[in-house]
Amino acid sequence: AMDGAPPPTSPTGLSAYVAVSQLLGLTLLATTGAWLGRYRGGVAWHSPLQFNAHPLCMVLGMVFLQGDALLVYRVFRNEAKRSTKALHALLHGLALVIALVGIIAVFESHRTKGIPDMYSLHSWCGMATFVLYLLQWFLGCGFFLFPGASFSLRGCYKPQHIFFGITLFILSITSCLLGITEMLLFKISDSYSHFVPEGILANTLGVLLVAFGLVVTYVLTREEWKRPPLAEELALSMDFKTLTEGESPGG
Amino acid sequence: AMDGAPPPTSPTGLSAYVAVSQLLGLTLLATTGAWLGRYRGGVAWHSPLQFNAHPLCMVLGMVFLQGDALLVYRVFRNEAKRSTKALHALLHGLALVIALVGIIAVFESHRTKGIPDMYSLHSWCGMATFVLYLLQWFLGCGFFLFPGASFSLRGCYKPQHIFFGITLFILSITSCLLGITEMLLFKISDSYSHFVPEGILANTLGVLLVAFGLVVTYVLTREEWKRPPLAEELALSMDFKTLTEGESPGG
Repeated sequence: AMDGAPPPTSPTGLSAYVAVSQLLGLTLLATTGAWLGRYRGGVAWHSPLQFNAHPLCMVLGMVFLQGDALLVYRVFRNEAKRSTKALHALLHGLALVIALVGIIAVFESHRTKGIPDMYSLHSWCGMATFVLYLLQWFLGCGFFLFPGASFSLRGCYKPQHIFFGITLFILSITSCLLGITEMLLFKISDSYSHFVPEGILANTLGVLLVAFGLVVTYVLTREEWKRPPLAEELALSMDFKTLTEGESPGG
Repeated sequence: AMDGAPPPTSPTGLSAYVAVSQLLGLTLLATTGAWLGRYRGGVAWHSPLQFNAHPLCMVLGMVFLQGDALLVYRVFRNEAKRSTKALHALLHGLALVIALVGIIAVFESHRTKGIPDMYSLHSWCGMATFVLYLLQWFLGCGFFLFPGASFSLRGCYKPQHIFFGITLFILSITSCLLGITEMLLFKISDSYSHFVPEGILANTLGVLLVAFGLVVTYVLTREEWKRPPLAEELALSMDFKTLTEGESPGG
């Protein structure tokens, strides 16, 4: 930081939206816990309750942590880009590990109970989302975190990385909504249409998931809230540009 | 058009993506028709088949026509803005009317069969999407189509209109996926897990809906493909700006 520089600030409104997103995120974790704890007997590994680890892990990993990983460039807008990037990769990595635990839970639970795998639209969407999310994570690390990719290659890939990042976040939420619908029709098919509390609670969880997705994507896509390059980053990219333009004969 | 101006062109790639979107759109209409015709007895009003009008109308209105209404500014990029805007409003209006027919179909079918309404997550998401879509249509007409809203008011509302427009399109597709899952678990709950053809076909319809949403939102959000103002629009907005700046004393 240079002497006399004004203290770093966030744009008006951004902090409020981020606060709302975190409140929604915690509320949807609590709602998932309440549903599983109050109506589905709780969560345990190596037990008939192993299945319940699936919704909990997927909401925590593929929604809450993935969403927060997307927000880091808006929240830590005055930190060095390298640190923010590392946090972005770390949160996505953590989300992937927790999601993997959730996927193992449902496959093991199906095997124990003799239920076939991968026949439903939920499983198709969810598995495709997870595999593409893992791929996106590897591509992101390869292009942006490790040295090697050139400045111009990074610039080409960046818009694709952002578009598919937001797409995978939305697909994750969609997969959760499909999972909620499946679970309700398997577990309370007879009473769901009578507006029983479990149905209302699970529907509310669905609405909270949509609300979380809405607030996060609003923050991400609002033009004025994008992270501007810091003064030193601008200087660096100028130097780099001059350097590469000086090198290439066609400049 | 001015003399000597180059013939209007579309950016490279855009036409290919739009063509793919239309192919996907027609394929998903055909797939919906095939599902309802081959496995669900077809579509008819005032009959036990009335329910089947619901998925057909929702896919046609809330997905295909809504998606195409979003694409008009990319496709007709060299037409006068006023005509493109009218087409945009008209296609959304048509989508709303067809969706309304689809909603009436499910409510009438429920009343005939004594099934309760509005208890499922699909109905909550779908109804919220339809009501907000109708509201967005009225707001869009009020701000952009009828005279009255000032230049600066339009400028303030435009980013919100775009964000919520894409959001409602994604929510429409999500609601369709929830509806497919519900319908499969109601109609073929015993055989769905055995990978019967009807299950595979309906899952494929879900995947096609996601693919259509993906291609359309990619076209809409790609920066270089946004509709640039035509030469005469730029001149007009300059005149307007000079005029309003001249009028306001604080300018």
